[in-house]
Amino acid sequence: MGRVTARRSVVTYDAETRRQRPDSLAVEEPMEIRVNGEQFAVTMRTPGSDFELAQGFLLSEGVVSRRDQIAAIRYCAGKNDDDENTFNVLDVAVRGGNLAALDAMKRQTYTTSSCGICGKASLEAVATTTSFSPAADRTAFAREVVASLPDRLREAQRVFDVTGGLHAAGLFTAHGDALVVREDVGRHNAVDKVLGWALEHDRLPMTGIALCVSGRASFELAQKATMAGIPLLVAVSAPSSLAVSLAEEVGLTIAGFVRGTSMNVYAHADRIRD
Amino acid sequence: MGRVTARRSVVTYDAETRRQRPDSLAVEEPMEIRVNGEQFAVTMRTPGSDFELAQGFLLSEGVVSRRDQIAAIRYCAGKNDDDENTFNVLDVAVRGGNLAALDAMKRQTYTTSSCGICGKASLEAVATTTSFSPAADRTAFAREVVASLPDRLREAQRVFDVTGGLHAAGLFTAHGDALVVREDVGRHNAVDKVLGWALEHDRLPMTGIALCVSGRASFELAQKATMAGIPLLVAVSAPSSLAVSLAEEVGLTIAGFVRGTSMNVYAHADRIRD
Repeated sequence: MGRVTARRSVVTYDAETRRQRPDSLAVEEPMEIRVNGEQFAVTMRTPGSDFELAQGFLLSEGVVSRRDQIAAIRYCAGKNDDDENTFNVLDVAVRGGNLAALDAMKRQTYTTSSCGICGKASLEAVATTTSFSPAADRTAFAREVVASLPDRLREAQRVFDVTGGLHAAGLFTAHGDALVVREDVGRHNAVDKVLGWALEHDRLPMTGIALCVSGRASFELAQKATMAGIPLLVAVSAPSSLAVSLAEEVGLTIAGFVRGTSMNVYAHADRIRD
Repeated sequence: MGRVTARRSVVTYDAETRRQRPDSLAVEEPMEIRVNGEQFAVTMRTPGSDFELAQGFLLSEGVVSRRDQIAAIRYCAGKNDDDENTFNVLDVAVRGGNLAALDAMKRQTYTTSSCGICGKASLEAVATTTSFSPAADRTAFAREVVASLPDRLREAQRVFDVTGGLHAAGLFTAHGDALVVREDVGRHNAVDKVLGWALEHDRLPMTGIALCVSGRASFELAQKATMAGIPLLVAVSAPSSLAVSLAEEVGLTIAGFVRGTSMNVYAHADRIRD
């Protein structure tokens, strides 16, 4: 797919040789998300699954939580210098939804007057914004299934072998079946794409579903899992302290360093069964 | 250092065993950056080198480009519920500098009316904002030195072995000597910290200096290198298409997949000498 990878000339050095050859790179392009005609955010992303990305982003930010709150999505008639549509500007028509979250997002970034910003306030902001709670989800996940998810994610990555530069995120059932896998140059975008898929397919809250990511588990990824009502976040690498604090607070299970048969479970380990 | 790592209880599964033990996690906390008393940005970061992070961020955004434009930096008297300073809010007094960039940043994210957002516009924005240009830098870098930088970066990472969850960035001379190495849960923050170090030590533009990062080379990292006048960006993993486009445009060399004796050079390969 031409929009996902781009061909470039590269000089490759091996131990003894220097040669010039074509190479495939992951495409990165800006995408602007508008809500009801007003600009909401700009993100650097890999083109593809743009509608999912926009919907997942709006879910993550607390603007929408149900499919029927998305009335329409369209590419604006954005033009570059050559008068071609860039397909880099999306307008989402939101019906109902929590439009106040748009303002809250702007306020948080630019105009708060309080001087007490801290991790605890970040946790409370998620807890008060989310429409769903992982805490109520009683699904048990078999340890073998959890351990297998990173390999299943890699198997499902079709683009990865070509560019080597893409992060991946996938949604899996408790049996280990992949519902959807998406890739992006940005970790957060890959997660937003799978969450947008879930919203579009009316699968929220994602009870009984695991989110597997190819890198680390940051606060922001734990936040996104929480906003979708996902009970289990599986990461190939380490979580941050604040991701674990959020997980403890909202009832999310975080498994990190999931490699081969070993893993670390940082919060709510009772969901993992031998 | 208690602010960089946090101790947590973790359940560790190996092939046959399940045991509970304490573990160290990288700390992630929000930091708010104010400029002359007005909020500019909030970033999730690993505490430590906060003043450097703030200065590097302002350099990356085109607000400052010289040490004397930073009149003062202080932690605001931010208080949490227990009436303790959170050390999560910084106010930077900027003297001179390009304060219009503050407004431009807000405009770019929230109020642009053009519908033609595209990669080319992103490149032009960097080219017109930067005070420095890597293009004029005639420094040659020996291939063996470039190949050695990721290992030198890892050697310099003190926290990595403890938490396994931190990204790193380092500035190196053409002889391979490390000037500064910083870590963070966020890739961009690690780079901003070393750029802030350079600003604070009056080392801009960074002629003859290589920036080495532990992950991929995104557009944003290539932008940061450009804003500091750095001629060579070395990444352990792949660059994105837009990072390479920017590098070609501004005269930046990007080496990716630098592992052992092999590497790929994606732009301006003439700076690398056998």
